[in-house]
Amino acid sequence: MIVIKQKTKRNLNISGNRGMELESSINDSNSFYNEKKISYIYKKPTPIKVVTLNGKVITKAFFEGDSTLDYCGIYCKKFIEFEAKSTKSKTSFPLKNIAEHQLNHLLLINKLGGISFLIIEFAALNEYYLLSCSILENFILNSRHKSIKIDFFIKNAIKIKQGYHPRLYYLEALDSLL
Amino acid sequence: MIVIKQKTKRNLNISGNRGMELESSINDSNSFYNEKKISYIYKKPTPIKVVTLNGKVITKAFFEGDSTLDYCGIYCKKFIEFEAKSTKSKTSFPLKNIAEHQLNHLLLINKLGGISFLIIEFAALNEYYLLSCSILENFILNSRHKSIKIDFFIKNAIKIKQGYHPRLYYLEALDSLL
Repeated sequence: MIVIKQKTKRNLNISGNRGMELESSINDSNSFYNEKKISYIYKKPTPIKVVTLNGKVITKAFFEGDSTLDYCGIYCKKFIEFEAKSTKSKTSFPLKNIAEHQLNHLLLINKLGGISFLIIEFAALNEYYLLSCSILENFILNSRHKSIKIDFFIKNAIKIKQGYHPRLYYLEALDSLL
Repeated sequence: MIVIKQKTKRNLNISGNRGMELESSINDSNSFYNEKKISYIYKKPTPIKVVTLNGKVITKAFFEGDSTLDYCGIYCKKFIEFEAKSTKSKTSFPLKNIAEHQLNHLLLINKLGGISFLIIEFAALNEYYLLSCSILENFILNSRHKSIKIDFFIKNAIKIKQGYHPRLYYLEALDSLL
């Protein structure tokens, strides 16, 4: 039996390439923006099927279904959905970090008129980029590369400014897409 | 210890005034609309904090935080969020069925430019209504009544047509708000 203090094992699996720090930075940023009531963006809870309860304690339950993207909400009257990923590479972001169902979901939200994107952390460079779904789709359609080089991010993604609170000014970065 | 087959005890508490049938009808309608890719609307998972895992089985966990509204998604490029409630009364819908934090959340989404509303089932009449957040807010501001009479729904809400699949044509009802 494993005791988990901070997050579930499944979350650790799902976000193995995201990193706790990135998640914490995004949660901090969401708190900042949501408190100011300029957005309402939240981390989607993992779907869990509860089987048995003892008082208020869940004593048997299972993870269920595929999770889609991690974050969802409303900003500038728009439906927002995005995934956050971290890489230790200094030169490129491996596309295998995005599961096929996540890519399909990004494309679906984009098609429905929502704003879907990735937030990519280059941990070793301490740089963060917001990559729009359309540019990601274009890259995948027109390239056979299995990773996206940092130069591509510099040219085609939006660099996210960092601060204390919010840790990541990602909605300001998003503004240039709206 | 209680064994729960269909849903969690907390869900039963939260939706004690919603009714399983209404939830099932809405889930069926969402499947119908989402499969046609005219929307992506889903029931929000209940936030659960996992403490211990034994293989793939969660052996200790707790419900955490206040749930907000039950359903969320995108339709017609708009951010949608709504709550579904059922009443057995033939004459009125008691406002106590809406928790204060739910009402505040409806108002917040409306203010941010999203579309927030209630779906109310009058189970004994087999009638369903979509009540917009703005009309609900207006009612609460201008009335001291603790319930909304069926006549108010007939005049001010949108009656939802019923079918086999989707069970509730609630997005067609919503069209008149957009």
